[in-house]
Amino acid sequence: MQALMMDRPLLISSLIDFAAKYHSDTEIVSRTVEGPIHRYTWKDAGARSKQVAQALSNKLGVTLGDRIATLAWNGYRHLELYYGVSGMGAILHTINPRLFPEQIVYIAEHAEDKVIFLDLTFVPLLEAVADKLTSVEAFVIMTDEDHMPDTSLPNVLCYETLIGDQSGDYDWPEFDENTASSLCYTSGTTGNPKGALYGHRSTVLHSYCVCTVDGLGLGSHDVVLPVVPMFHANAWGIVYAAAMCGAKMVMPGAAMDGASIYELLDSEKVTLSLGVPTVWLMLLNHLQETGDKLPHMDRTVIGGSAAPRSMIEAFQFNYDVTVVHAWGMTEMSPLGTTGMLRPKHAGLSAEQKVDIQVKQGAAVYNVDMKIVDDDGNAQPHDGVAFGNLLVRGPWIASGYFKGEGGDVLQDGWFPTGDVATMDPDGYMQITDRSKDVIKSGGEWISSIDLENEAVGCPGVAEAAVIGIYHPKWDERPLLVVVRSEGSDVGKDEILAYLEGKIAKWWMPDDVQFVDELPHTATGKLQKVTIREQFKDYVLPTASDAAE
Amino acid sequence: MQALMMDRPLLISSLIDFAAKYHSDTEIVSRTVEGPIHRYTWKDAGARSKQVAQALSNKLGVTLGDRIATLAWNGYRHLELYYGVSGMGAILHTINPRLFPEQIVYIAEHAEDKVIFLDLTFVPLLEAVADKLTSVEAFVIMTDEDHMPDTSLPNVLCYETLIGDQSGDYDWPEFDENTASSLCYTSGTTGNPKGALYGHRSTVLHSYCVCTVDGLGLGSHDVVLPVVPMFHANAWGIVYAAAMCGAKMVMPGAAMDGASIYELLDSEKVTLSLGVPTVWLMLLNHLQETGDKLPHMDRTVIGGSAAPRSMIEAFQFNYDVTVVHAWGMTEMSPLGTTGMLRPKHAGLSAEQKVDIQVKQGAAVYNVDMKIVDDDGNAQPHDGVAFGNLLVRGPWIASGYFKGEGGDVLQDGWFPTGDVATMDPDGYMQITDRSKDVIKSGGEWISSIDLENEAVGCPGVAEAAVIGIYHPKWDERPLLVVVRSEGSDVGKDEILAYLEGKIAKWWMPDDVQFVDELPHTATGKLQKVTIREQFKDYVLPTASDAAE
Repeated sequence: MQALMMDRPLLISSLIDFAAKYHSDTEIVSRTVEGPIHRYTWKDAGARSKQVAQALSNKLGVTLGDRIATLAWNGYRHLELYYGVSGMGAILHTINPRLFPEQIVYIAEHAEDKVIFLDLTFVPLLEAVADKLTSVEAFVIMTDEDHMPDTSLPNVLCYETLIGDQSGDYDWPEFDENTASSLCYTSGTTGNPKGALYGHRSTVLHSYCVCTVDGLGLGSHDVVLPVVPMFHANAWGIVYAAAMCGAKMVMPGAAMDGASIYELLDSEKVTLSLGVPTVWLMLLNHLQETGDKLPHMDRTVIGGSAAPRSMIEAFQFNYDVTVVHAWGMTEMSPLGTTGMLRPKHAGLSAEQKVDIQVKQGAAVYNVDMKIVDDDGNAQPHDGVAFGNLLVRGPWIASGYFKGEGGDVLQDGWFPTGDVATMDPDGYMQITDRSKDVIKSGGEWISSIDLENEAVGCPGVAEAAVIGIYHPKWDERPLLVVVRSEGSDVGKDEILAYLEGKIAKWWMPDDVQFVDELPHTATGKLQKVTIREQFKDYVLPTASDAAE
Repeated sequence: MQALMMDRPLLISSLIDFAAKYHSDTEIVSRTVEGPIHRYTWKDAGARSKQVAQALSNKLGVTLGDRIATLAWNGYRHLELYYGVSGMGAILHTINPRLFPEQIVYIAEHAEDKVIFLDLTFVPLLEAVADKLTSVEAFVIMTDEDHMPDTSLPNVLCYETLIGDQSGDYDWPEFDENTASSLCYTSGTTGNPKGALYGHRSTVLHSYCVCTVDGLGLGSHDVVLPVVPMFHANAWGIVYAAAMCGAKMVMPGAAMDGASIYELLDSEKVTLSLGVPTVWLMLLNHLQETGDKLPHMDRTVIGGSAAPRSMIEAFQFNYDVTVVHAWGMTEMSPLGTTGMLRPKHAGLSAEQKVDIQVKQGAAVYNVDMKIVDDDGNAQPHDGVAFGNLLVRGPWIASGYFKGEGGDVLQDGWFPTGDVATMDPDGYMQITDRSKDVIKSGGEWISSIDLENEAVGCPGVAEAAVIGIYHPKWDERPLLVVVRSEGSDVGKDEILAYLEGKIAKWWMPDDVQFVDELPHTATGKLQKVTIREQFKDYVLPTASDAAE
């Protein structure tokens, strides 16, 4: 029997309509690429988003399902595109401008972008590749006529001129809530980038999560500054969620340095900010240099990569800003876990609270999680056992745009590629990447845990652990070490140091020394390259076992 | 183009699964009908809900869509039925035990209830009408064998015995999220009760609203005590929302008096409680008598009928408990507006804040609202203009069970039957019932506003205003007054008192005096009866106009 409740689709346009109608005078403050601070309200944003939709339809012939790309910083015009493009039923494709030009070309061609909207910053970048963008019919520079540059871009338009003569008298169309709304490519470590294709329903449900007390607790009382870019998984959903609750938004434009971010945090009385550890490190350095404090700020959300313990402690102990450690993926819209504490933690010391906060956070409602071994058997949630982390829920990808990567789900679950532990309260801690974990005699050894212990040894500057073939145990750990300058620390000293700190059977079978270890652009160890370097290496224990 | 996100249905079973898994040791505390306080956890509730589902299926032959009724107070077994019945795909029909027996029979027959679960309290009530309940195959008394009463009820079962031998090893079925989940009848002022038929999707979305910061802000940090009964629009959705966020629940059973409620608020350190003004009046009286305070309580939600200003002030000024004035209807699951304050109100005085809080609250995301005149023209949201209040959203009824009342929607909107103003921030204030508003020369006069002013006149004990036919103006207001004991206040004095307090054209055309006014069981004026009493009355101004 069907319920007798209204069949109302969950559409992104309903978010901006709500904010424009009921939080009409709440501000959106942007640092512009042109220079000055720009201020207007949700009411203005609502009206101009409708002008965007009209212009796309009337002037550029954009229809339902067309891909419209942006290369843009966090700012009010980008926000208008979020609502104008998706609201009219087209698909907003946010391109990461930090990718290599050839990757940008690949992505834009793969997405068959019809129009590209770009900030002034990115005119040279696109001029260099414009002739390779075969599907693009127009380039719209997100500025006004006064700031339009000389450019070799073909079919170039000025944003303010494009939308300026549109009335804003426009009713958002209604359509199936499962319609695609936006597209974001992940830059995987191997192969071509693959596109996560979000929908209206998934976006609205994800926004609800952000606005729940136990999600990110975003509310109309907040002034929220997403430092995380709008081309990174939709700024972690904040642009949508802020409209759902009518929060004041502050957007930093291109200026992500500590001084610029601090200036906005302070002048706009920001209560909640979100970003990756790298930007918070810049902010913390700035604060240390200047002695500035953060009196208005209530909490900061740290995600993208693991927040170091020292960073959590600096925010909480020195600046009285609560850290919410969060974890997710582009394929997860992106929220999966958030590290809010619970009433049961109230009696803990400040240090003990940090012990929990260094974990990646607890499961939120509607993100179902399990950890499994290689045969798919669920592992206990005891905070000790670890396994491949699988996730399931209404805002998690079921596949990639145009079927890239094939059928990615395992029995209906999305494999995150992470290895993690879960404790009984759902707090999750990533212990390794699935492809880096060392499988020894049917048991798993965390390469990350071993590396973290090894760098504690005096004389060790950096450490990497990889699995090496072993005839008896399948794999055994090899520790690869870069010595600190002037150190001559040896294998025996290091292994002796590890004794008692790790399970006996986790002890590396050997230590090899190198001058340097390979890293990715974001500073992570390139395990693939390290494994390649040691592909002919044979463990000293291998011959014993073969005897 | 369809999004590539997982197609996961929003099901009620996912709420209890989440709480049982990730908030497993959080308590649910119930005052039982049998006497003692009962304590267990969300994990226990999850396991026993599955036992309920198994028993319904294995022993009672219940299948998808069957209606399973409850006559029960707020307690843990009732909570298990919320999840067990809906989770397995049957429909939980919560019957209000305070209805007249013949209404209960009408409702149970109309719903074709297959099983009725009842608290010990209601055994005599059902014994008296059992022979008229033709569809009921079993009566399950919600107690254990030790407390089973002697009863004349046919096919009677003991709850604990029914579920005790079920393993709890059960996977909730998956089905369409638009499947009906529960049924609640409204006791309209005219005609037979009509059933609102909720669904899994509407319930999950409504729960999200409750858990958002700007909805009711329910979170895992809360200890929540719903005084509002689980047979009143699902205790305003709290039983579902508490599982979504893993809040500790406290349930009062049958004891709603001030002393009993206070004892639970205090001993369980309740942070959030919800109820109608009547129960809060009992609590406030108790506190005044005993001098007790409410140190743990953070906020109280008042709904069901308008919260008097004095009550809001008492909670906030005397007990430091923030009042959230909320408004909704059974047909709205029930939340429509919640009276959270905004950052813009921070500078107001305590009294000015109450000026806003006496309104029924602000629109929440996903409840679209408009006020219209009798021709359907939208009225401005200026806090002054009023009109018929229409609502629309995914947790609002599209009709009634079995088509009762016909096609109730107006152009896709649900008519609330209320007349209200809306201010630019979406704060709504009910000024009248649609059928009570007086329509004079195309303009509307609020009967409630006039009554509120009139009772301020010395010598006036109670006042009612009804519209009387007028040949020129269609309707004009008649003020019907009950004098205070010993008073001989007259028409001219009262009208003189009103002068300057109301718009000139709102002035009643006449005043009539009566010994008493008719009321409903809940203390509201029975306008239908008053209109009946004055159906032959002719206004003194009518003959002038006719000349």
